[in-house]
Amino acid sequence: MDNRAIGVFDSGLGGLTAVKELRVLLPNQDIVYFGDTGRVPYGSRSNETVIQYTKQDIRFLETFDPKLILMACGTASSVALRAVEEQVETPLIGVVQPASLTASEQTKNGKVAIIGTQSTIASKSYEKALAGFDSSIETMAVACPLFVPIVENGRTCKDDPVVRTLIADYLCEIKEFGADVLILGCTHYPLLTDAVNDYFDGAVTLINPGAEAASYVQYLLSDSRKEAPRTVKGDLRCYVSDKTQNFERLASLFLEQELFGKVEKIDIESY
Amino acid sequence: MDNRAIGVFDSGLGGLTAVKELRVLLPNQDIVYFGDTGRVPYGSRSNETVIQYTKQDIRFLETFDPKLILMACGTASSVALRAVEEQVETPLIGVVQPASLTASEQTKNGKVAIIGTQSTIASKSYEKALAGFDSSIETMAVACPLFVPIVENGRTCKDDPVVRTLIADYLCEIKEFGADVLILGCTHYPLLTDAVNDYFDGAVTLINPGAEAASYVQYLLSDSRKEAPRTVKGDLRCYVSDKTQNFERLASLFLEQELFGKVEKIDIESY
Repeated sequence: MDNRAIGVFDSGLGGLTAVKELRVLLPNQDIVYFGDTGRVPYGSRSNETVIQYTKQDIRFLETFDPKLILMACGTASSVALRAVEEQVETPLIGVVQPASLTASEQTKNGKVAIIGTQSTIASKSYEKALAGFDSSIETMAVACPLFVPIVENGRTCKDDPVVRTLIADYLCEIKEFGADVLILGCTHYPLLTDAVNDYFDGAVTLINPGAEAASYVQYLLSDSRKEAPRTVKGDLRCYVSDKTQNFERLASLFLEQELFGKVEKIDIESY
Repeated sequence: MDNRAIGVFDSGLGGLTAVKELRVLLPNQDIVYFGDTGRVPYGSRSNETVIQYTKQDIRFLETFDPKLILMACGTASSVALRAVEEQVETPLIGVVQPASLTASEQTKNGKVAIIGTQSTIASKSYEKALAGFDSSIETMAVACPLFVPIVENGRTCKDDPVVRTLIADYLCEIKEFGADVLILGCTHYPLLTDAVNDYFDGAVTLINPGAEAASYVQYLLSDSRKEAPRTVKGDLRCYVSDKTQNFERLASLFLEQELFGKVEKIDIESY
C-alpha cells in the first residue's frame, strides 16, 4: 500500500485522456494533474525548450511527493524522458513504450503507422520502441502539427469539414501504406478517434497511448504493491499555468465527465 | 535625429510582416525584433497571461534603450497596451488604432469586418477604435483561432484544401454581412492575403495592421524629428525565446527576403 498521489502532466489538456483511464483503472488513487496551458503546445518547440519545460513540470509535481509521475505528453515522452530521468528520483513513466508494445502485439500484417507532433515524429521514438519489441515491423510516421490546435479549439466532430479535410491531408499516405495499426502518438489525438475511424472505415486498429500508459501504471503499482488503499475514492487535483476558466471549459471534453474539485493556477516559471 | 533603434515584438513570427514594411519605409532605421517563439501563441491565452508576457517582452526590448516600441501583435495591442503603457517610459505603439483609422477611411458602404485571435475579438478593441473614428460604421468580428497555426505551419497557399476549407468556414458570415473592408487583425494573417482575396473575388479591401502601424511609426518619427540619420543602412537584430533554427526557417517567408544577420535565443522568463 502506498497512500501517495500519482503525478500526471501534459503540455495542456491532452493528458486528461490518460487521467480518464487512470480513474477507471485505479478509482481509489489520488491524482495530481498539471497542464502547462500557459506554454502549450510543446510539439512545435525545440528539444531544448521541451526539456526545460519538462524539468519545471516535474519539479512542480515533486512538491507533492508522488509515487510516480506519468508524462502524459507524447512530445515530452519522446524528446525529454531520456534527458531528465537520471536527474529525477521519482519514477517517470512515458507513453511511448506501453503504446509501442501494444501496437507490436496487435498488428497482423506487420505494418504500424504513427502520427504525432513534429518533435515526436522527428525523434523517431516510436519506431525505436517498436523495433525493440519486434524488429520485423514496418513503420510509417507522419507529423500532424495541426491536430493539436483543432482539438484544443474543440473541433473533433467527424462531420466537421475542417476535420475531414485535415485528416484526409495527413493520413492519405498511411492509407496507401496499408498499416493495420495506427498509434495516436499525442494525447490530444484520441479525441479524433471517431473521425479517424471514419476515414479508415474502421479497418485500422487505433492505439491510445494515454490509455496504454494508464494500464502500465496499474500493472506497475500492482506488481510493486504500491496501490492506494481501497477504502476511499481517489481525489483529482488539477493545476494549470494559465487562467483556470479556459481549462475548466475544455477539460470536461477530455475527461468525458464534469471536472469536479478545484483547479488552481500556478507560476510554472518559478519551478 | 535619433540614432536609437526601434523595438518590435510579437508572440512569434507574425510581427515580421510589420518589420518588412518598416524596412521599406525607414531603410536607415535600426530595428531590434523579439519573437516570443517559446510561448507562441498569445491569442488563446488569458488576458492576465498576455499582460505578463507583454511586460517581459517590453522589459527585454528596453535593455536596448529604443526610441519607441511597436507592439506588432494584435492580441498584445488589444488586451495589454492599456494595462502596461502607464508603467512604461518608452512610447508604445499598438496596431489597433492605425488599422482602424485606415479602415474607417476606406469603407464606402460603412460595413467593416474584423478577424483576429479569440482574445483580440473578445476585447472588442477594433470596434471601439472604429467607433472613435466614425460612430456610424457597422462592424462584424469573427475569431479565427486556427489561422495562426496554419500560417506558422507554412500553409498559406490559396489552393491548399485546408486553407480553403478554413477560410470558407470562418469568413462565410462576413461575406453574408457584406463588408467592403476587412481588417486582418493579427499580424500572421497578411500571409493569407491571396487566399482571402480569392475567397472574396477581390471585392473586399484588406487592411494589414502591421503595415498601417509601420506607416504611423514613420509619421511619428518624421513629426518629432526622430528619424535615423540617412547615412547608413539600418540594421535588423532578431531575438527569440526558442531555438533559432526554427525561426530562421520561417522568417524569410514573413519578411519575403532572406533573413540577414544573426538571430539569438534569450531567456525571456528572466525579464
